[in-house]
Amino acid sequence: MKNKVQPRILPGFMELLPEDQIQFNRMYDTIRRVYERYGFLPLDTPTIELSEVLLAKAGGETEKQIYRFEKGDSDLSLRFDLTVPLARYVSQHFPDLTFPFKRYQMSKVFRGERPQKGRFREFYQCDIDVIGVDSLDLVFDAEMPAVIYNVFKELDFGAFTIRMNNRKVLNGFFTALGYADKIGDILRTIDKLEKMGRDAVVSELTEYGVAAKDVDTILSFIAIRGTNDEVLTKLAAQPVDNEQYREGVAELTQVIGYLRRFGVEESAYMIDLTIARGLDYYTGTVYETMLNDYPSMGSVCSGGRYDNLTEYYTDQKLPGIGISIGLSRLYYQLKENGLLKEGARSIARCIVIPMGESEMNAAITVAAELRSKNVPVDVYYQQKGMKQKMKYAARLGIPYAAIIGESERENGTVMLKNMETGEQKEVSVSELSDVLM
Amino acid sequence: MKNKVQPRILPGFMELLPEDQIQFNRMYDTIRRVYERYGFLPLDTPTIELSEVLLAKAGGETEKQIYRFEKGDSDLSLRFDLTVPLARYVSQHFPDLTFPFKRYQMSKVFRGERPQKGRFREFYQCDIDVIGVDSLDLVFDAEMPAVIYNVFKELDFGAFTIRMNNRKVLNGFFTALGYADKIGDILRTIDKLEKMGRDAVVSELTEYGVAAKDVDTILSFIAIRGTNDEVLTKLAAQPVDNEQYREGVAELTQVIGYLRRFGVEESAYMIDLTIARGLDYYTGTVYETMLNDYPSMGSVCSGGRYDNLTEYYTDQKLPGIGISIGLSRLYYQLKENGLLKEGARSIARCIVIPMGESEMNAAITVAAELRSKNVPVDVYYQQKGMKQKMKYAARLGIPYAAIIGESERENGTVMLKNMETGEQKEVSVSELSDVLM
Repeated sequence: MKNKVQPRILPGFMELLPEDQIQFNRMYDTIRRVYERYGFLPLDTPTIELSEVLLAKAGGETEKQIYRFEKGDSDLSLRFDLTVPLARYVSQHFPDLTFPFKRYQMSKVFRGERPQKGRFREFYQCDIDVIGVDSLDLVFDAEMPAVIYNVFKELDFGAFTIRMNNRKVLNGFFTALGYADKIGDILRTIDKLEKMGRDAVVSELTEYGVAAKDVDTILSFIAIRGTNDEVLTKLAAQPVDNEQYREGVAELTQVIGYLRRFGVEESAYMIDLTIARGLDYYTGTVYETMLNDYPSMGSVCSGGRYDNLTEYYTDQKLPGIGISIGLSRLYYQLKENGLLKEGARSIARCIVIPMGESEMNAAITVAAELRSKNVPVDVYYQQKGMKQKMKYAARLGIPYAAIIGESERENGTVMLKNMETGEQKEVSVSELSDVLM
Repeated sequence: MKNKVQPRILPGFMELLPEDQIQFNRMYDTIRRVYERYGFLPLDTPTIELSEVLLAKAGGETEKQIYRFEKGDSDLSLRFDLTVPLARYVSQHFPDLTFPFKRYQMSKVFRGERPQKGRFREFYQCDIDVIGVDSLDLVFDAEMPAVIYNVFKELDFGAFTIRMNNRKVLNGFFTALGYADKIGDILRTIDKLEKMGRDAVVSELTEYGVAAKDVDTILSFIAIRGTNDEVLTKLAAQPVDNEQYREGVAELTQVIGYLRRFGVEESAYMIDLTIARGLDYYTGTVYETMLNDYPSMGSVCSGGRYDNLTEYYTDQKLPGIGISIGLSRLYYQLKENGLLKEGARSIARCIVIPMGESEMNAAITVAAELRSKNVPVDVYYQQKGMKQKMKYAARLGIPYAAIIGESERENGTVMLKNMETGEQKEVSVSELSDVLM
């Protein structure tokens, strides 16, 4: 007897049972369908990239998490997001692409984080981005939330809110207050308002050297609430003497205007001045998306506009805008919170079950007939008792069993059993596909 | 000015332009759809596994090709196929699975081979396997070629032939000749008959100590040809006194019988005694699939039956059968040979083009209307001249452009242009989705 190796995977890696994988794939397929419906083109970049290329920008925390290794003479890394590969792709294939370049990529990325509940080291990101040459129209800033809206509406996990802001509004406001050199720190701090609470934000802002009266001004400003039109009116009325601020408010106003044309329900989005998105990267509209009943999940879809995607690879100025759904994490959280719809656990609509060996040929023929009409079906081929056969169908959650005994075989029928209700009726083989669809 | 990094990927990695990716994805989706139609369940195992687990069996050539690295205290490897992860998965999740366990997995695998034309270091494998506990019915041996048949019929790349054999037939035949201890060598040699030619095979067999008269016997045996029924008759008539041989012939006969029930055209499969599949692994029915007009491509879908999937992980005896399509290589070869159908280069059916800024709102509304009816559409938002706008549509291969000028906006219509024929007609917005579908 050989020594056996204990079959196991690494902590922090997601692996699902088939019935869960079916639900996961249904979410994946829904997101992909909506992305494609908006004209985004598919992309599939290599999992392994040259470290020199992939890490042109990275540093600090990110670099520590990279799966990096040598093979032959090459220094290689697994991608840690889909944005850097997009920047590399666009720079590399520039002459062959059509701009504005709209792409989606829904692939695994890899981060060697310390494993913790709901955090994965290998997880799916589902990204869309639009990249322009030199400029990119503001309508795209409205198309992004329209896509988010349709994705989450079709995913059907209850009410959600797309929270929008514009970095120019914040940058302009802080600049007008005299904190042009502290914008990054201030943004990262107010971004934590929801998590840390007001007191912690006040003391952190003070630490950064923001005067007490300005701390108040900032906190009152980002607390502005109301309908989208009310917020826009209040923003326009602020006595802020800064061009960037004015530009930001004008952009927000225009984006909200377009968004209404996209058929997005007004209740699904709101201007929220606390949304800063910590990354330096963003320069205009920014988004976060919350499930209304599960704010603790945090943002389930975020993104924004950036000025220059490819600065590490080319001199070409390529502004863009994009959003990302962390699908593995989203799936995990929904599952943990019991929010996943029951739905069909099975792809097969029906399982064909021959009573005995003499019905095997008939069973194969019936299944072939159904499949030729694109009905997904399984067949039970093993020589076992009926109890075992039915148990197989029940465990897999297949909604119908088409049982073939001697009389059904002779009559050209099946005994069709609804596995949920237990109801049975004899159905002719020729009608079976209609009954099942 | 910062120094730029040259954007590039490693040699031996496939990366496609969007129009090619669309075709690749169409093949991927077709294969997936057929797999699901036969009741196979989706699986998605981690890309990164523990080396100790993944390499429990591997050795020699395989091990050299592994992307293996350390992260923290862990010795990790990227999967090099989907079969070992399946064995690990089935052993690990045994109590939670329903047997016979039918799964498909269509994922990237990684092999650090020396790059050569048409060989990739990161490529998609599209596998199905059925795993039984202790036993697995012979009908599954017929279901596999039925799946292959439907996949390649729907992929629609011309005539193909599924070549089938049974290892028991070969093993029994060689054993009866007195070469029980040389079966592995003989199999690997005759497997190369097509590539190396008869003379090389003769000298290699002789080298292995096969007597000259037996070399002749072997070569005449594997050259048996005819219709499937003729071959079966000839096999039955062979004076081979070996139980395994008789069992193999009986299995082949039964599998061919079932296969006819699956609705597979007789011309699409043949018994071919030269198909040995070099791997020790296989123990019964084996398959290879050739595109009739491109034999130089080699087998585009191979597989077979094995006795024990999980011997490195459990004592449980789990026989199985499976096939694999190397999709990246298949795609590459079809493309190189100009065999890819032209097909639609675009997912979007239509692009909505506002003539000027005053038509932007109308364009967004028309697109929203079409998308609500599940028509994939793109919209041109940039402020450019009409020439540039039409060029965008043409380059992306979008079949229709719905152009909105002042009069269309006022009439609630679009000027619908067939991008291929150049034909134009005014269509009301409410009828547009019907015209496009």
